[in-house]
Amino acid sequence: MAKRLKFWGWGYEDEVVPPAELRWMESTWAERFGVAGFSVTPTPAAAEIRLPAPRIAPPASLAAICTTDHYERVLHSYSKSFPDIIRVYRRECPSPADVVALPRNERDVVDLLDWCYGANAAVVPFGGGSSVVGGVTPPTGGGHAAVVSMDLRNLGKVLEIDEVSQCARIQAGTFGPSLEAQLKGAGLTLRHFPQSFQCSTLGGWIATRAGGHFATLYTHIDDLVESLRVVTPSGVLETRRLPGSGAGPSPDRMFIGSEGTLGVITEAWMRLRRRPGFRATATVKFGDFYRGTDAVRALAQSGLYPANCRILDAEESQYNGLADGRHSVLVVAFESADHPVEAPLKRALELCRDFGGEADMGAGEASHLEGAAGRWRERFMFLPYFKEHMAARCIFRDAYETAITWDRFKDFHASIREAGLAAIRKATGREGSVSCRFTHVYPDGPAPYLTFHGLSSSPERLMSDYWAVKSAASDAIIAGGGTITHHHAVGREHRPWYDRQRPELFACALRAAKSALDPKWLLNPGLLVDRNPA
Amino acid sequence: MAKRLKFWGWGYEDEVVPPAELRWMESTWAERFGVAGFSVTPTPAAAEIRLPAPRIAPPASLAAICTTDHYERVLHSYSKSFPDIIRVYRRECPSPADVVALPRNERDVVDLLDWCYGANAAVVPFGGGSSVVGGVTPPTGGGHAAVVSMDLRNLGKVLEIDEVSQCARIQAGTFGPSLEAQLKGAGLTLRHFPQSFQCSTLGGWIATRAGGHFATLYTHIDDLVESLRVVTPSGVLETRRLPGSGAGPSPDRMFIGSEGTLGVITEAWMRLRRRPGFRATATVKFGDFYRGTDAVRALAQSGLYPANCRILDAEESQYNGLADGRHSVLVVAFESADHPVEAPLKRALELCRDFGGEADMGAGEASHLEGAAGRWRERFMFLPYFKEHMAARCIFRDAYETAITWDRFKDFHASIREAGLAAIRKATGREGSVSCRFTHVYPDGPAPYLTFHGLSSSPERLMSDYWAVKSAASDAIIAGGGTITHHHAVGREHRPWYDRQRPELFACALRAAKSALDPKWLLNPGLLVDRNPA
Repeated sequence: MAKRLKFWGWGYEDEVVPPAELRWMESTWAERFGVAGFSVTPTPAAAEIRLPAPRIAPPASLAAICTTDHYERVLHSYSKSFPDIIRVYRRECPSPADVVALPRNERDVVDLLDWCYGANAAVVPFGGGSSVVGGVTPPTGGGHAAVVSMDLRNLGKVLEIDEVSQCARIQAGTFGPSLEAQLKGAGLTLRHFPQSFQCSTLGGWIATRAGGHFATLYTHIDDLVESLRVVTPSGVLETRRLPGSGAGPSPDRMFIGSEGTLGVITEAWMRLRRRPGFRATATVKFGDFYRGTDAVRALAQSGLYPANCRILDAEESQYNGLADGRHSVLVVAFESADHPVEAPLKRALELCRDFGGEADMGAGEASHLEGAAGRWRERFMFLPYFKEHMAARCIFRDAYETAITWDRFKDFHASIREAGLAAIRKATGREGSVSCRFTHVYPDGPAPYLTFHGLSSSPERLMSDYWAVKSAASDAIIAGGGTITHHHAVGREHRPWYDRQRPELFACALRAAKSALDPKWLLNPGLLVDRNPA
Repeated sequence: MAKRLKFWGWGYEDEVVPPAELRWMESTWAERFGVAGFSVTPTPAAAEIRLPAPRIAPPASLAAICTTDHYERVLHSYSKSFPDIIRVYRRECPSPADVVALPRNERDVVDLLDWCYGANAAVVPFGGGSSVVGGVTPPTGGGHAAVVSMDLRNLGKVLEIDEVSQCARIQAGTFGPSLEAQLKGAGLTLRHFPQSFQCSTLGGWIATRAGGHFATLYTHIDDLVESLRVVTPSGVLETRRLPGSGAGPSPDRMFIGSEGTLGVITEAWMRLRRRPGFRATATVKFGDFYRGTDAVRALAQSGLYPANCRILDAEESQYNGLADGRHSVLVVAFESADHPVEAPLKRALELCRDFGGEADMGAGEASHLEGAAGRWRERFMFLPYFKEHMAARCIFRDAYETAITWDRFKDFHASIREAGLAAIRKATGREGSVSCRFTHVYPDGPAPYLTFHGLSSSPERLMSDYWAVKSAASDAIIAGGGTITHHHAVGREHRPWYDRQRPELFACALRAAKSALDPKWLLNPGLLVDRNPA
């Protein structure tokens, strides 16, 4: 165990934003909100977080794989959601994990579940803990006697590689970088690169329907799952390795997105591909955001299937160093392990020109790391590291990521933006900002990602201001016909809007399925469905 | 109502195999089995099928949308499976529908379900009735008092077209040709062309996870469903129109493939595309089938995503008029509404050459209707019409369609082929044939489609011979790790093998979900899961 994950923010303890970069960002924020500077709440030390004594102790047979170490309990008592980061900075820990379990293999997972069932302890499956929606935050209330956070980090191996079918059997606790490193020798890659890649795991991606690298076609992890192995309180389940099937409703699809409520995913056969050797990238400027999104629609419906196809509005483009604040920018890229991809890029740029887009074309294989597109990529992976620094300065920032059909997109986008801006103004008495980019696009609609910034007048107001804005934007998403989440999952924080989004009869079916697999409702109680509907 | 569907075989009453074609086929069969000719059981007339009186009568309020007309009851008492066709030719009807209901709208569906629930009548949702696995065959046994076949043919409209998002809201009873005709004015198409296209419906495709036109990417109807409306005994459910979502397990995926056991699908928003104007097609000959399948694997893993990529072994190639009986033939085609597709075809043929494939390239836009590929297409749509004529001649023919990963394909194919040939020999005392083609291909494996032919010594032996071979082949599929169905669905006839394929805990969850939506278990009882597990 070299590196420890931060409990107070994004990434690992040794990953700090360089002071010069932080100063530059601080001046950007000060300019945005028209303030001279910020008072900064210091980063908490683990010792400042006070925890009650654990309510249960593991039996001797499981003691070696359980810990009540203070740091571990603190780390497993928060997700990386903005409200959880606020709590960390307030040194509050309202729902701590009593015990952290660290199974070494599937047998341990079975034994731990048996123990929890006997002890009436709720179980929270934990991958990298990078949920931004309270997905790993221990439940409060409910009938359980204690909470065990089950961290799968010791299930981190690629167990088997099938080079012929280009698949691998991978343990659920494998982190992104380790997963890719273990595949590299075979020349294969999963190419699933969510923004959380460094600090999230395969099991977490599957349980939350994570969105990855590809802007079209293979957008979610869902399509990359060939088969699953899941430990439920009622037994162990394994689906067949099948490239395709029409035999009844898909068993895999029931567990994909189940967010730890139906079982603990222990391993999966995943579909891989060869590493791409051919690449072509360009950025395209548009004077008007909606002209740009019209171009993206044409691209999404062209059958060209670009690997990257992400448009940023003028504000995001400027923030990411892509443009001057007057232009929206589309980053479009193609990649292949098999054939050159200049021709589809050329056709994509023709389509963009039809909507007034001016291309700045990268050249050759390394173009994805150069120029504006490369700058965007770098900034993109770095962004989550700023969140804790913003919370420390009473700036709330969050993203509302959704999906909507093209016919409704413009009104939908405008309504969320207006709801957000009005709510920020009302809550904080100050102008905030709402910017937009697309993370993924489909022939029938985009996945818009709206980023909100507001400045609260005091640390005491930060939580309520945040929720006032979150609620207004989420209400607009549901009212406009969108999904409360395209790829961040439901967690504890999206739950009220998820309840309004999903058909009640589906909730009934899901409730029944959960009762069949988890009869005591101890797996992540309160996530997705309740035992007794309101 | 101009045309009536045949009750005794494939398609409509007025669709007959031209006598010359039938004579040619008969001579082919005679040559294959080394016989001089066949005694032919005459096609049954509806009056020859004797039915008991209906066990229930609809209330006056529903009388106008219910019928006990003899022809309608006979039509709704059989699927198009080979065992059902044998029964038709034997003039046996062991499990007739008591009443045929013809709802005109969703309200009627709700009222009919209410009536059936009150009368304890089992309900069999019926689209075009083209199931080849007993999916619409009325259930026998069970606790129900009668069987109502609910035919959705009067829900046949495209209700709304969203040209911006390229989607349409379509009623579930819409048949393939009518669906495409209603979309044509908008320049849009679903491009879902299963072999059953003429006589199957949208609702049937969704309920059975039908496989369509595209050999790669959009292989099943699953990915074309944007949202669903379903009437269950517990109420009506509608999912949101979303291009993508990560909010919990997908509600749509629970109903896709549910085969009428969870509810009656009444309408769906479907993803469409523009009609392709660019096409390029070629056929490629291989001296060895497995060299050809290696080439198909390279193609499937290339990221070229051909629309068609179907390899036929030497026997099927000859049978379809594509080759001389010594070569396997790959039909490969690209299509686009946006851009020329000669370049990807050229690259595909390069890949084939690496495996010794010799290309016969079609030219230009009309190439898909010309030459060997065009002949294949014509024969393909015509094939199902021969099945009843074979049954009349004591020839049993069936297809075992499955999917398997590439690493296991060759052994798997060999084992099914050997099991089938041995079972035919043992059952009939005569050599039969087992041929193979691919219907769809994935980066991680193909969907092989194996066609079996055998000749029984008498009409009395036909059913048992058929089942002996079916069982041997299905056992080999399950033992080899495949799926019992890639796109024909489970129905009543695949059920024993489906039970061995799907994880038992998934069956528990599905059983619980069914109890929540259909508490009296009256929707297609006996399909997919039983109320009380064995």
